[in-house]
Amino acid sequence: MITARDNPKIKRVAMLVSSAKKRRKEGVFVLEGSRLCGEALRENITVNELYYTNRALLEHHSLIDELKSKALFYSEVSQSVFEKISDTDSPQGILLTFSFKENKKEIKTGKWLAFESVSDPSNLGAAARTAEALGFGGILLSKTGVDPYSPKSLRASMGALLRLPVIVAEDFEGEINRLKEEGFNITGTVVESTALKINELSFGEKEVAVIGNEANGLTEKMKKICDRLVTIPMSGRAESLNAGVAAAIVMWEMVR
Amino acid sequence: MITARDNPKIKRVAMLVSSAKKRRKEGVFVLEGSRLCGEALRENITVNELYYTNRALLEHHSLIDELKSKALFYSEVSQSVFEKISDTDSPQGILLTFSFKENKKEIKTGKWLAFESVSDPSNLGAAARTAEALGFGGILLSKTGVDPYSPKSLRASMGALLRLPVIVAEDFEGEINRLKEEGFNITGTVVESTALKINELSFGEKEVAVIGNEANGLTEKMKKICDRLVTIPMSGRAESLNAGVAAAIVMWEMVR
Repeated sequence: MITARDNPKIKRVAMLVSSAKKRRKEGVFVLEGSRLCGEALRENITVNELYYTNRALLEHHSLIDELKSKALFYSEVSQSVFEKISDTDSPQGILLTFSFKENKKEIKTGKWLAFESVSDPSNLGAAARTAEALGFGGILLSKTGVDPYSPKSLRASMGALLRLPVIVAEDFEGEINRLKEEGFNITGTVVESTALKINELSFGEKEVAVIGNEANGLTEKMKKICDRLVTIPMSGRAESLNAGVAAAIVMWEMVR
Repeated sequence: MITARDNPKIKRVAMLVSSAKKRRKEGVFVLEGSRLCGEALRENITVNELYYTNRALLEHHSLIDELKSKALFYSEVSQSVFEKISDTDSPQGILLTFSFKENKKEIKTGKWLAFESVSDPSNLGAAARTAEALGFGGILLSKTGVDPYSPKSLRASMGALLRLPVIVAEDFEGEINRLKEEGFNITGTVVESTALKINELSFGEKEVAVIGNEANGLTEKMKKICDRLVTIPMSGRAESLNAGVAAAIVMWEMVR
């Protein structure tokens, strides 16, 4: 049992939780909480390390047993050590590190959500969950946005970001242009009353919905690339919707 | 300037942040962050106390000046004191306590969102923001759900919960029954493939959408009260949508 907060393994995990750079460099990510850790029993995920408190062991005995049999290393840790590696306010006491084979599906058809520089992991996570529920092909992201494999993103997506194809484009605009050439309709979402109304359009089999950054919206360059700009008509207070909600309404309109 | 974390005023504010009971008893609530504190310049809000760090004073000088002129008491506080009263991971250094006259509009017509025991303040907040943007009449809540005036709820709603009529019903089922008798259509949202499809319905001028608890959905009793049960058809993985997103899609269908 690990009780020292400066244990080298624990310090490394704390680094993985806080640093996207460290995660990318090592190709190792973190899942926390019983529901999300259950995702690690999927085929494409390798459990590296497993850490749990005594309380979690009592509450999630069979899950922890199953994870132990997959993990390369596991250890019980004290409550104080767990708080050091936890990213949540009320830790459940179960956390693992993992590497995984990304679901690297090529974009050939179907409906895709593209985020230009999304900055809030909760918005990305919520949108991923919606995309999965509505049967979207996957998600395309720019490198300038938030890390889809951060603990916060993964948690908000309830694991959808591990199940859906997620493509982080080296050249986001180039990728959108390429999809346009391959016959995808590129629909950009804006908060402009002059844009087309989302509920008055029809959608085909090859669609990309592009959502902009929460604070700044789509870049002018991206707006020019889009085949059409649409808006969600609002009768109430002229304040934009939460980005996760706006993405959900746009995706819903594309499949309803 | 307050530098002692055990200052009686600071201890009281920390209690207000953490305890719904304390807030209700005193009729005093808490706003944090520059954008939300700006809401306190509205007419129906009385600023009781204002606390800010030196850094916030430099960044939000004019807002803090304006709030000072409204506040009954104000003080600069040290970073350490601010962290004690803050509810966020990265505090902006501006927080106030307030009392306010609730927007107690009676439910006579229009579209209303009703939450039976919502448990996550982020879901309530996001739904309130959507309700406001889409021109809903307001929100009806059960007493068993989360406090709409908690710092987390208010923040997730971007202040919409202070602007919209919000009614916390002593007797939620009784209130829904009363609205039914007054000619409102009561539409309950469920995750059941046998329910009516939300996109195949039409809606009138007097509508109530009832959303259930995140984990348990609507109670059987509430399902019986509803005029109809609807579902959001999903082609993807059979896992329900985030409650804030489900509420958003239902509200959107009611106004589109």
